[in-house]
Amino acid sequence: MIQLIGFDGDDTLWHSEGYYQSAHAEFERIVGRHADLADARLHERLLETERRNIKLFGYGAKGMTLSMLEAAFAVTEGRITSTDMHRIVELGKQVMAHPVELLPGIREAVTAVAHHYPVVLITKGDLFHQELKVAASGLADLFRRIEIVSEKDAHAYARVLGEFGVEPSAFAMVGNSLRSDIEPVVRLGGWGVHMPYHVTWAHEAENGLGPEHGARVATVDEPSGIPKALAALQARATALVEGRA
Amino acid sequence: MIQLIGFDGDDTLWHSEGYYQSAHAEFERIVGRHADLADARLHERLLETERRNIKLFGYGAKGMTLSMLEAAFAVTEGRITSTDMHRIVELGKQVMAHPVELLPGIREAVTAVAHHYPVVLITKGDLFHQELKVAASGLADLFRRIEIVSEKDAHAYARVLGEFGVEPSAFAMVGNSLRSDIEPVVRLGGWGVHMPYHVTWAHEAENGLGPEHGARVATVDEPSGIPKALAALQARATALVEGRA
Repeated sequence: MIQLIGFDGDDTLWHSEGYYQSAHAEFERIVGRHADLADARLHERLLETERRNIKLFGYGAKGMTLSMLEAAFAVTEGRITSTDMHRIVELGKQVMAHPVELLPGIREAVTAVAHHYPVVLITKGDLFHQELKVAASGLADLFRRIEIVSEKDAHAYARVLGEFGVEPSAFAMVGNSLRSDIEPVVRLGGWGVHMPYHVTWAHEAENGLGPEHGARVATVDEPSGIPKALAALQARATALVEGRA
Repeated sequence: MIQLIGFDGDDTLWHSEGYYQSAHAEFERIVGRHADLADARLHERLLETERRNIKLFGYGAKGMTLSMLEAAFAVTEGRITSTDMHRIVELGKQVMAHPVELLPGIREAVTAVAHHYPVVLITKGDLFHQELKVAASGLADLFRRIEIVSEKDAHAYARVLGEFGVEPSAFAMVGNSLRSDIEPVVRLGGWGVHMPYHVTWAHEAENGLGPEHGARVATVDEPSGIPKALAALQARATALVEGRA
């Protein structure tokens, strides 16, 4: 039986990816003043730089900004000006200061779920930036616990659930990323409500869920569908416990 | 009675501040190629920039690097080259990748304390960088829990102790910073073992401890003194409980 519900933050409770994508577009405009973007494969080289640096920086806007600076210098072979390097720093600061705008209906959905279950917030990324966003969201009081982890893998979920004293089979996670929110929880024996966001960061697109996991996952297209999806998963969990499935 | 011991990470378990100060020295050499450092009040302006940006970046090497870039551009009025901006990015990456070198005797001290009490690690700063350092330290197994917080104030300690289910009066914190490790814990009614480090970051130098807090704090000059200092605090705590103090 499901006893605890986790919610993701970015692009599940509040809009996020759009701000990063706008920053990337502006970054390409800046670098395009000093190099031919197609020739330089800027998009691919930024992704490569980010992938390499994530091992050192982790996720988040500060690391993204440093990766942008590194990629801009490399791609332009040093031709970029310090003024444009400084513009990239400012771009990163704008992403860090972006307004926290809730997804329509999410407050009502979390409130409805919190009426039936303890709910916790489990987000990934930069500790400080995530705390700023949680505070600005006005949703903090709905959550029993707020856990900010550096990577959302099975190991991190197992540790957090251990601290909560909850078995994975009694846990359902709600989020927009199959890779970070759904797959690791389902692999541990838990449940997932997938709510796709209209844009997905390239690094989040890969996942290893197969058809065998289908019964563990419900998909909704907007927050209002979350309570009903959890009820459906709870019915499946109950049937499993009672040996009917 | 004291039931739980917390340890700080940077400059308590492993060396840290020296790497930041070396980076600052190299930063001044780089910026000095483009501006008169005394005229430009570089040191003060970097501190001002950091203080302003901490509200947006939090603590840690990534934020420090972005503040250095911003200050370097401002102080040189844009005369700095993109090559030198890129050198500052590399400088920040070096700090993030610095080797984790334990303080002499700290492993033995934590092991001795862990023989008598559950011990937890409570560090401040960048989540990802702190996790890398904990992993590299080889000390992770000695700690029951590892908590990485964005700011070590009374609010953060109260939250963490609440999650552990421990009263502040039953908690002692060991660390090098009076401001971050000792003062907030003592203000909550807890205990502190202060182990000064030979260099202190300018932002950590201020604290509001007064003579009335003296009985709550023991000072040691090296890790081997920690177990005895905790025993002394435990004796005072016991005397308090038994009404002898």
